[in-house]
Order: sequence, then structure tokens, then C-alpha cells
Amino acid sequence: MESAAEQPFVDEVIRVRYAETDQMGVVYYANYLVWFEIGRTAWCRARGFRYRDMEEQDGRMLMVAEAACRYKAPARFEDEILIRTTVADASEKVIRFAYEIRNRETGELLATGETVHVVTDRNARSARLPDRYRAYFGLAPRSPETPE
Amino acid sequence: MESAAEQPFVDEVIRVRYAETDQMGVVYYANYLVWFEIGRTAWCRARGFRYRDMEEQDGRMLMVAEAACRYKAPARFEDEILIRTTVADASEKVIRFAYEIRNRETGELLATGETVHVVTDRNARSARLPDRYRAYFGLAPRSPETPE
Amino acid sequence: MESAAEQPFVDEVIRVRYAETDQMGVVYYANYLVWFEIGRTAWCRARGFRYRDMEEQDGRMLMVAEAACRYKAPARFEDEILIRTTVADASEKVIRFAYEIRNRETGELLATGETVHVVTDRNARSARLPDRYRAYFGLAPRSPETPE
Amino acid sequence: MESAAEQPFVDEVIRVRYAETDQMGVVYYANYLVWFEIGRTAWCRARGFRYRDMEEQDGRMLMVAEAACRYKAPARFEDEILIRTTVADASEKVIRFAYEIRNRETGELLATGETVHVVTDRNARSARLPDRYRAYFGLAPRSPETPE
Repeated sequence: MESAAEQPFVDEVIRVRYAETDQMGVVYYANYLVWFEIGRTAWCRARGFRYRDMEEQDGRMLMVAEAACRYKAPARFEDEILIRTTVADASEKVIRFAYEIRNRETGELLATGETVHVVTDRNARSARLPDRYRAYFGLAPRSPETPE
Repeated sequence: MESAAEQPFVDEVIRVRYAETDQMGVVYYANYLVWFEIGRTAWCRARGFRYRDMEEQDGRMLMVAEAACRYKAPARFEDEILIRTTVADASEKVIRFAYEIRNRETGELLATGETVHVVTDRNARSARLPDRYRAYFGLAPRSPETPE
Repeated sequence: MESAAEQPFVDEVIRVRYAETDQMGVVYYANYLVWFEIGRTAWCRARGFRYRDMEEQDGRMLMVAEAACRYKAPARFEDEILIRTTVADASEKVIRFAYEIRNRETGELLATGETVHVVTDRNARSARLPDRYRAYFGLAPRSPETPE
Repeated sequence: MESAAEQPFVDEVIRVRYAETDQMGVVYYANYLVWFEIGRTAWCRARGFRYRDMEEQDGRMLMVAEAACRYKAPARFEDEILIRTTVADASEKVIRFAYEIRNRETGELLATGETVHVVTDRNARSARLPDRYRAYFGLAPRSPETPE
């Protein structure tokens, strides 16, 4: 896999919703994957494009192939949460995001995680990242003679 | 509005998920609208069609225009929930569902609600119920001379 | 019901999450009730208290008794959403919130709604708003001779 | 870690909810973790106890420490989903569940996953599985002289 240049974290802040808590009094574990998605979307915006446009205009999806999360400390209702997102690795066919979830006020690390995505077309078939998105993911321009 | 023949309730049973609880220790209030949707889907199946087919094959959606819920008693994790659904009123352009949510074991009424839906095409434009669905909703067949 | 002084809207902005969309390509209808809850929490903060403290420190809950929403136009992934919240009516036992949901960029009205809440203690028994919260909800101080 | 005896899968069937889909037309990825939780609860019932009782009566929680999911094929609205759950490993302090998600009709494997849980008391402090639950998780009875 062609390696992406090392990339900085992009930070996004959210506030824990009542809907996100469960009867243990803390945020339900599946919601961290929702937060990762918020992080990815923020990462795209920070890099200069909208993920929505990539889907709508370019017909390319980042279909999730793997997701993992390690939970360190609980998040609670009304806590401000810092979602930190980076691209750990990217090729024109596979993108790997990494995440840190922190309590924004205390800085405490609440969770870490990764997701792996394959680039697909609208019919969920494997595809290649459109050329104009290569730079966003730290990939060199495709040389003209690269075979399809 | 052309009134639908009075229709019986269709019953569906679900079990409360941990994900559906909140830090008050009971089911979070927005989830009752998810349960209503489960009731609608079960109602369609009980009447003889799949809502999924209506969307995919006939290109007709039932877009929600209104939803209301009155909460009587809480539901808790692992409770068996009886979702009772009926069509309170139907025309070829507007469908009104009504719901009862009960604890299945005790029979206790937990909530009542209604949703109003307008029939639309794939582009969210107002449309008419396809002819073959009229009977499901208690509507008389369309007379041949009915103008488009 | 003792009427609250008319109160201004409190505004909160969120961005639509991918998780909130459904296969119709728009925000799933139950999520508007989650947005209403975000509006309530923001309203409390804007008035000077945290709803979380009312639960934790004062042992008072605002249990939902009714919720209603009218959907005017769809919300889509990455849209910025303006949640506008006000208290339409308040007594020491019952609070009624009203909401407007708008597209922040265009100003378009997407939905309106209301929720009715009864004040309860930790055991879901009807209770009275603690004295120090009366002013937040536009209620006059309780006179000393008011019977319990 | 004291190894649990190998245990069979416990099967549970659910039907995909409209709420669980996203604008890609398939089930949103975080919902698989909700399905894992449904699988765990079903596993407990099949072994002879209610997870709810373990929380309420015994004051023991299974707090999630890690979760992972690999997505093989999409699930769609109204699909019947088979959730297969087993305990891959158990000690009195740490439980590891493993899952398979299949399309019930076709048998196709949609996802696999694992979650790791630490036994805690109500205050989220590490604790030990109550003696009466040891057998459920395939653990030998604790010998009387085992030090606390």
C-alpha cells in the first residue's frame, strides 16, 4: 500500500446528548463509532472538501470494512468531547482513519479507535479515489501512464 | 378525505435493547417513533405486502408529515413490548397510522401515538398510492374514468 | 396553570450526522426528537443552569409526557441545522417547550414541535420544581405561606 | 486467564429497521455494535439468567473495554438478520464475546466481531463475577480457600 504522508489530527468538539447515554449513566458504546464518523467528516472539511460532494458529485463512497474501539474512561451527559481524527494510512483504494476521543475540559483520553474504508462506486464495487482527491489524502498525483 | 374501512390492530413484539435506554434508566423518548416505524412495517407485512417493495418496485414513499406520542408509563431494558398498529384513516394521498405501545407481559399501556404520511414519488413530490395498494389500505378500486 | 412570561428562543446549531440519515437520503424522523432534546439542554444553559445539575444535585427530572413534530422539509447530511427552543408555558409541575428546526444557511423552516414535561423526583413521582429554578422558567418566587 | 470451556453459539433473529439504514441504503455501521449487545443479552437468557438481574440484583456490570467489527457484506431494510453469539474466553474479571452476523435467509456472512468486557461494580470499579454466575460462563466453582 502506498503510504500517505504523516498527517496531523483534525479536532472537532461535540457535546454529549442525553440520547447517547444508557442506563449505566454513561455514553452507550456504539455511539463512539458515530463520533468517529463525525471526526471523518470534519477531517474532510479541514482538508478542503465535503464528503457529501464526494458521494454526490463523484459517486465515490468510503465503505467501512473494519472498525475498532478501545474504551478507557466513560463520557457523560453534557460533557464536551474532543474528537481527534487523522489518516493513518491511505492508498487510492483503501483509507485508514485513526481517532482519539478526549474529554475536552480535562483532556482525559476516553477512547481510541480506527476504521478502515474501501473506496467504492455507487454500486458498492471497488473503485479508485478520484484524482482530485489524491492530494487530500496525501497521495502523489497519478502519473499519466498509469494503467487503468 | 375518503375514509378507510375501520381496520384491526396488527401486533408486533420486540424486546427493549440496552441501546434504547438512557441515564434515567428507561427507554429514551425518541425511540417510540422507531417502534412506530416497526409497527408500520409489520402492518404492511400483515396486510400482504412489503413496504420495501413499495419503495423499490413502485417508487412510492410514505413520507412522514406529522408524528405525536403521549407517554403513560416507562419501558425498561429487556421488557417485552407489544407494538399495536392500525390505519386510522387513509386516502390515496394521505395515510394516518395510530399506535398503542404496551408492556406485553402486564398489558400495561405505555404510550399511544399517531403518524401522518403523504404519498410521494422518489423525488419527494406528492403522488398517489399505486392502484394495487388501494385494497391494502381499505380503499375502493379506482373507477376507470377517474381523471389523472 | 400559572403562565410563564413570554420567553425568547434560544438558538443552537448542529450539523447533520451521517448516522442520522436513512435510506430515503434524508434525516430519519425520530432524530428530530433528539434535536429537541439538544434544544432543551441549550435552553437551560442559556438561562443559566445545567439540566445535568438539576438531575444530579436536585434530584428533579423533566419526564416527557407528550411530544409532537410536524415535518415541513427534509434535512440532509452535513446541513447545518438551527434548533430554536422556547418555553411556551410553565408551572411548577408542568413545562411545555416549543421548537423550530431550520436550515441554518437558507433559513428554511424544516419542522416545528412541542414537548410537555412533568417535574418528577428520582422515583418518577410527580414533584415540584425546586425554588431556585423558578426564575429560570419565568415563575414568580413561591410565597412563604404557600402550603406544601 | 482461566479459560472457559468452549461454548456453542446462541442464535437470535431480528429484522432490520428503517431507522438502522443510512443514505447509502444499507445498515449504518455503528448499529452492528447494537446487534452485538442484542446477541449478548440473548446469550445470557439462553444460558439461564437475565443480564438485567445481574445489574439490578447483583450490582455487577459488564463494562465494554474493546469492540471490533469486520464488515463483509451489507444488510438492508427488512432483511432478517441472524445474530450468533458465543463466549470466546472468560475469567472472573474479563469476558470476551465473539459474534457472527448473517443474513438469515441466504446464510451469507455479513460481519464478524468481538467485544471485551471487564466485570465492575456499580461504581465502575473492577470486580469479580458473582459466584452464582461462574457456571454460566463456563468457570469452575471457586474453591472455599480462594483468597479475596
